[in-house]
Amino acid sequence: MVQSTRAQDEQPHDLPDDDFGAADASAGQRTRPWQPYIEAALGFRNHWYFAFFGHELPEGEFRAEELLGEHILFKRVEGRVYAVEDHCLHRGVNFSARLECYTANTVTCWYHGFTYNMRDGRLVGVVTDPQAPLIGKVAIPTYPVEEHKGLVFVFVGDLDPPPPLVDDLPPGLLDPEVAVYPRGRRRVVNANWRLAIENGIDPAHAYLHRNAPLLVELERPLALATFPLSREGLVSAPESGPKGIVKGKGNRLPVYESEVEGVKITSRFKPGPGARPTTSGLSGWLPGSAKVDGFPTPDKIVFEFYVPIDERSHMYCQTLAKYPVESEADAEAFFAEADAYWMALVADKFNHDDILGRESMERFYAEEDGWYAERLTRSDMILTEWRKLASQYNRGIQRRGLNRQRRAPREER
Amino acid sequence: MVQSTRAQDEQPHDLPDDDFGAADASAGQRTRPWQPYIEAALGFRNHWYFAFFGHELPEGEFRAEELLGEHILFKRVEGRVYAVEDHCLHRGVNFSARLECYTANTVTCWYHGFTYNMRDGRLVGVVTDPQAPLIGKVAIPTYPVEEHKGLVFVFVGDLDPPPPLVDDLPPGLLDPEVAVYPRGRRRVVNANWRLAIENGIDPAHAYLHRNAPLLVELERPLALATFPLSREGLVSAPESGPKGIVKGKGNRLPVYESEVEGVKITSRFKPGPGARPTTSGLSGWLPGSAKVDGFPTPDKIVFEFYVPIDERSHMYCQTLAKYPVESEADAEAFFAEADAYWMALVADKFNHDDILGRESMERFYAEEDGWYAERLTRSDMILTEWRKLASQYNRGIQRRGLNRQRRAPREER
Amino acid sequence: MVQSTRAQDEQPHDLPDDDFGAADASAGQRTRPWQPYIEAALGFRNHWYFAFFGHELPEGEFRAEELLGEHILFKRVEGRVYAVEDHCLHRGVNFSARLECYTANTVTCWYHGFTYNMRDGRLVGVVTDPQAPLIGKVAIPTYPVEEHKGLVFVFVGDLDPPPPLVDDLPPGLLDPEVAVYPRGRRRVVNANWRLAIENGIDPAHAYLHRNAPLLVELERPLALATFPLSREGLVSAPESGPKGIVKGKGNRLPVYESEVEGVKITSRFKPGPGARPTTSGLSGWLPGSAKVDGFPTPDKIVFEFYVPIDERSHMYCQTLAKYPVESEADAEAFFAEADAYWMALVADKFNHDDILGRESMERFYAEEDGWYAERLTRSDMILTEWRKLASQYNRGIQRRGLNRQRRAPREER
Repeated sequence: MVQSTRAQDEQPHDLPDDDFGAADASAGQRTRPWQPYIEAALGFRNHWYFAFFGHELPEGEFRAEELLGEHILFKRVEGRVYAVEDHCLHRGVNFSARLECYTANTVTCWYHGFTYNMRDGRLVGVVTDPQAPLIGKVAIPTYPVEEHKGLVFVFVGDLDPPPPLVDDLPPGLLDPEVAVYPRGRRRVVNANWRLAIENGIDPAHAYLHRNAPLLVELERPLALATFPLSREGLVSAPESGPKGIVKGKGNRLPVYESEVEGVKITSRFKPGPGARPTTSGLSGWLPGSAKVDGFPTPDKIVFEFYVPIDERSHMYCQTLAKYPVESEADAEAFFAEADAYWMALVADKFNHDDILGRESMERFYAEEDGWYAERLTRSDMILTEWRKLASQYNRGIQRRGLNRQRRAPREER
Repeated sequence: MVQSTRAQDEQPHDLPDDDFGAADASAGQRTRPWQPYIEAALGFRNHWYFAFFGHELPEGEFRAEELLGEHILFKRVEGRVYAVEDHCLHRGVNFSARLECYTANTVTCWYHGFTYNMRDGRLVGVVTDPQAPLIGKVAIPTYPVEEHKGLVFVFVGDLDPPPPLVDDLPPGLLDPEVAVYPRGRRRVVNANWRLAIENGIDPAHAYLHRNAPLLVELERPLALATFPLSREGLVSAPESGPKGIVKGKGNRLPVYESEVEGVKITSRFKPGPGARPTTSGLSGWLPGSAKVDGFPTPDKIVFEFYVPIDERSHMYCQTLAKYPVESEADAEAFFAEADAYWMALVADKFNHDDILGRESMERFYAEEDGWYAERLTRSDMILTEWRKLASQYNRGIQRRGLNRQRRAPREER
Repeated sequence: MVQSTRAQDEQPHDLPDDDFGAADASAGQRTRPWQPYIEAALGFRNHWYFAFFGHELPEGEFRAEELLGEHILFKRVEGRVYAVEDHCLHRGVNFSARLECYTANTVTCWYHGFTYNMRDGRLVGVVTDPQAPLIGKVAIPTYPVEEHKGLVFVFVGDLDPPPPLVDDLPPGLLDPEVAVYPRGRRRVVNANWRLAIENGIDPAHAYLHRNAPLLVELERPLALATFPLSREGLVSAPESGPKGIVKGKGNRLPVYESEVEGVKITSRFKPGPGARPTTSGLSGWLPGSAKVDGFPTPDKIVFEFYVPIDERSHMYCQTLAKYPVESEADAEAFFAEADAYWMALVADKFNHDDILGRESMERFYAEEDGWYAERLTRSDMILTEWRKLASQYNRGIQRRGLNRQRRAPREER
């Protein structure tokens, strides 16, 4: 039997064991307190999403991405990034299949020369029929874009104007004294985006990382798990501003030692006099990002974005920040260090493990009965609170059908 | 804005802008004036189709092809090509998985020795049970086959006798003074057959080819687009004979120059004194072929066949012809030139572009809402006339289910 | 026409030609006398299945297999093999994705440290939450396992206790004087398991093997086909013990010569004075195995197991036996010979042909209408009797849904 060696074991907690949906499952009941979340395989609509790092799109060039099942074409014009749907309204081909462009403001479809203004999506000409009656009358969908600190965000939805970007970001990202490394990582992971954020904010999955090269290299303590036993203070949902789940420094019980049938399992490095400090906070935010304070060192923050590509994959975007920085030179020095060392350390010597976790859950949740047959437990309280928060505060559920309706071209009023 | 430089721009045309289905789409209405065509993902039943070039099937050999979702086994016996369904009626295996054959007239299933006559499909013996009661009583489906000028055609359907082959061919193909090159090209393209013929007869897609190596090599003028502004004379549907859409020499307006926001786009070579001549006619024919007169040079014709393989792919078959030829020696000289030069020039230095066009439309029409969300315009009139003609004059729609019923073996009467 | 050269041709048989379902098919009727069998794409539930050879799982190690659509994790503990479902009940990941193990008796999930006893499936600890309320209260499904003569069998079902293993084995396998070679072959074949056993017991498919290298090497007679013309004695279904179909030595008519349109087809080697002896018996057994007596030589037996992996593939497991053996030394000598010669001869120079047969039927039965459109004949009587027997005596049909219900963790009583 597993024996605990933690002093905190005797502490009470306020969570009945039937709080995680298991009872419903055995009764054959097919609803959960986070039903909208279960339906959001393609993500939440009417939110801002991280798209890519600004340096990935030089002036005058195009970049095509799939987000939430939509194909989006980005172009940088006079420094600013614009986005339109990557489908010609005429015959539905992707502009990006063979990019053609005659002027800074436009994209021309390679098939019949339909030419659209990147700023408003308007059909401004047809090379093969210069007097085509459609010119000026129809437009392809456009997407609001904002770029800050070298990160490009796009709004996927119908609200006009869109809500403030800052409401969909992890707090602090835009603060002046937070230096965000502008050349982070993006990788496609073959798992639904929800499994990604749940992996990111899961306080018990630290076990997965216990032998990570990063820990060895930094001699850094990491608990086998650290989770709160009370809901208090977990939810952050002010009327305006980001909505999220926060596992603060005080609100958790770390497990550094455990035992299975007499075999001890311990964290490789433990906190204590002379030991390196540990993470100071972990939080997850709508529509799908996480923030890890004090990681991998106390002056750093990891920002992660889990962006739905389609139902079965997401773009895993990561970057680092330093806090506080007091000058541009300070920031530049950090960026150079991140280039040389930190970014690869975090991404390749620590978070590579998370990709296994996400992809391993995919079959259970996508092909089987996972959302109903899973057996959550008290260390999953952050996840269940996240699911409830996401179900309550999302601005809409992205649907395949909705996407297709949008593709029918807008007639100008 | 795109500015036209054509004199013809002021000419009136007889096409209201709501003639192409857009209005229906925005009203959420889900029918089109060419509804049968939309249902014909597998092609039209009860028509003749190009199968392969005769030289691809030597005497006594077999050849297996999938057409319209049916698996067909061809064999040449004493010079003539016969075809049966490529499935043993016993356990459904393909004969072609391991061809076995004891006599000129027959094919024997490699699994249990069921032996069928290639001419009538009749079960004539069972190697493993020479007295099997089924012998002589059942038959596999056969397909009528005709071969002319080195091209093999097969009839996929139930009409007995089938209608005349010539009704399903582009006009002129069988004329004695038309020398048809018998060693053309066949390639699998990952797009539905309708996107192929629409690409082939689309008068505005010339833009796609404007930098094609063939044009450079021949210094040949090609308009950015050439399309009719009136329906007059487009449809050719005599009571007997092929049914098709004809874009004749007189019935069109070429665009050689265009402009996008002040940037000029021009055809690389323009017609005029001293310039090479251009194409003299383009037409498309049921069940799915096209003819380009005067291409790539005035004395030549391109014939193309777009043969459905399954819902997501077609066989793209092409050959050249010379017209008129006055002797066999004349024809042979042309065939030698085509071997050495013309066929590769046309297929690899011009029509390779079309494959991009077809495959790029595939997702929109096969997985999304393309047939209803597309936004056609006046330069697509040939396509909409083609769709209506095909909807009106086809002899049936090929269905997966129909195919399966046929597979239940016929009991002899 | 095929002409028979067999004397037996004139013998009567008791099978009307409409006995094989063809009449139903042409009448559009969609039932067969073996309907349960048609529904058993995933195999029969509540039976014992061959899993792997014992030497493939050394002491203390794990082995993951998919059987009947279930993911099963095996571990050998103190010589004995235990099996549990290869899914953590918490988030559904496979233990086998990154095997972790702290003690002989347990498997620990690599993601959050959920630790289960391999013997009873009980959750005995959670590394990341040593006081987790779930500990001791829930369990993952376990599977009964038996190992005999170096073959490991697993029971897939819900009966507790399971029925005797011997009822699900080909007769004789466990007899002391039968020396079973413990290092046989296993291969994945891309065909449903039913097509495999039907191939294995099909008395007319010998034709497929007529040029097999094994026959040449052993100069061994093999009829083109050998099938019974009467049902008498075919079914073996005692109240207790294995249920199967037996084609005995006396109950069949071999075809050694046949003719197609005057072309003679003969077995390469025929029986007669001085010729090598031929097979003495062939039988097929629930839930899915076959036994070939006297193959490839009179003192040997081939045992085959066709184990469903999923709906479209099965594990093809084969081994050889010698009978009778009188001492351990005798057995060891045979095993050495099998290592050096016999196993590869049988598997690679004879049964490789069968894989073509099975995979070639797959499309017809899985994607098309095969179960209803097939046209069986009198040489298939063993197959139709097998299908009826399997429909009557199976202990349940494996369903995807059932599998998913089981995955909802059992609450302990």
